[in-house]
Amino acid sequence: MIPASDRPYIFINSAMSADGKLSTFERKQVRISGKADFDRADALRAGADAIMVGIGTVLADDPSLTVKSEQRRKERVAAGKEENPVRVVIDSRARISADADIFKKGKGRKIIVVSEAAPEDKISLLSKIQDTAVIVAGSDRVNLEEMAARLKKEGIRRLMVEGGAGLNYGLISAGLVDELMIFVGNLIIGGENAPTFADGKGFSEEKIQKLALESAERIEDGILLTWKMKNE
Amino acid sequence: MIPASDRPYIFINSAMSADGKLSTFERKQVRISGKADFDRADALRAGADAIMVGIGTVLADDPSLTVKSEQRRKERVAAGKEENPVRVVIDSRARISADADIFKKGKGRKIIVVSEAAPEDKISLLSKIQDTAVIVAGSDRVNLEEMAARLKKEGIRRLMVEGGAGLNYGLISAGLVDELMIFVGNLIIGGENAPTFADGKGFSEEKIQKLALESAERIEDGILLTWKMKNE
Repeated sequence: MIPASDRPYIFINSAMSADGKLSTFERKQVRISGKADFDRADALRAGADAIMVGIGTVLADDPSLTVKSEQRRKERVAAGKEENPVRVVIDSRARISADADIFKKGKGRKIIVVSEAAPEDKISLLSKIQDTAVIVAGSDRVNLEEMAARLKKEGIRRLMVEGGAGLNYGLISAGLVDELMIFVGNLIIGGENAPTFADGKGFSEEKIQKLALESAERIEDGILLTWKMKNE
Repeated sequence: MIPASDRPYIFINSAMSADGKLSTFERKQVRISGKADFDRADALRAGADAIMVGIGTVLADDPSLTVKSEQRRKERVAAGKEENPVRVVIDSRARISADADIFKKGKGRKIIVVSEAAPEDKISLLSKIQDTAVIVAGSDRVNLEEMAARLKKEGIRRLMVEGGAGLNYGLISAGLVDELMIFVGNLIIGGENAPTFADGKGFSEEKIQKLALESAERIEDGILLTWKMKNE
């Protein structure tokens, strides 16, 4: 585990159903939270130096990951920042399309983190996109510790993760997460194959990650649970 | 959907990790809640007419499903009831062992609900166990609506369900559940194959089940969320 001082402060913001699912078994995105929670997430984005997602989320939802509020974008600019936080995609094999919305919508830097298994021509293609850098970290899959250390050196101190299930698990597993904000929505999605807040292989009993409940706040029809990770 | 008046009031009590898991990917039971939550669950048991689990839970954990508090058992007896609520297992193929703890530990009736696919000799064997009745409902799998109607006729008005993931999903899917009590514990278990609060096939977008958050109560290191089902 790398020292917390060598990496950004990393928090995950996510919305899940009351049974822990991020979407349906068909990977279809579902409205889990409402306007107030979207606005809360937008404020979190505006306060972060970077927003990160896994390639699965990009392929499934094609999010732009921009700050939606014009007021918040103005405030960022007034504070000497770019309109949007740096947008980071963890993409071991460089599967992201050069037409993805994060390249087309909103201003600001983009960083695609790939592994050595990514095709060189694709790395070259992505590197040519405006405001976009490619970082290679890890041999077959992205080495998340190395990635975190590299982002710190890029000046990123506060990193917001917006899923999905595989990236959440990978980061928690590597001891890289400081805080979880999980909005629990008022629905049951079900499904043994539906993505959950943390998928991957899963922890055996002795490796289960412990948390401390910081706060519980009702928002509209659900509840926001904020947990601190106990990285021991 | 059968009318609520033709079946017991059905509630699910469960403990899951902050990422919605009931146990590890190896199906190993994990301590998700503490003493206070165990005691709360024991009080719920004592107040129910019957406790139900799926066969998967019996095979994995071999629970006795008895009321643990002697005081509560005495109060039940003083009120003219049996020491323990009726213990019900949903077991389509009659896979339960005649040596299971629910047959050996604690006094009181047991009902094993099987389908027509269950072997006749096994049905016969189980029927001979003291205080045990076998109910056949459904052809290949237990028909949960028929089961619920049959239990009502057996005098069960308040039914507590204690999992697992498949039974929870089946009951919710059939519109048979009135209330969910989900203790969310302070840990991340992870795992795409770990059992979650509701597994099964899962709902497509238009079939997603809506809830109303009744209350949120911090208990020890976790939080108890109580939801009412909106069976529409």
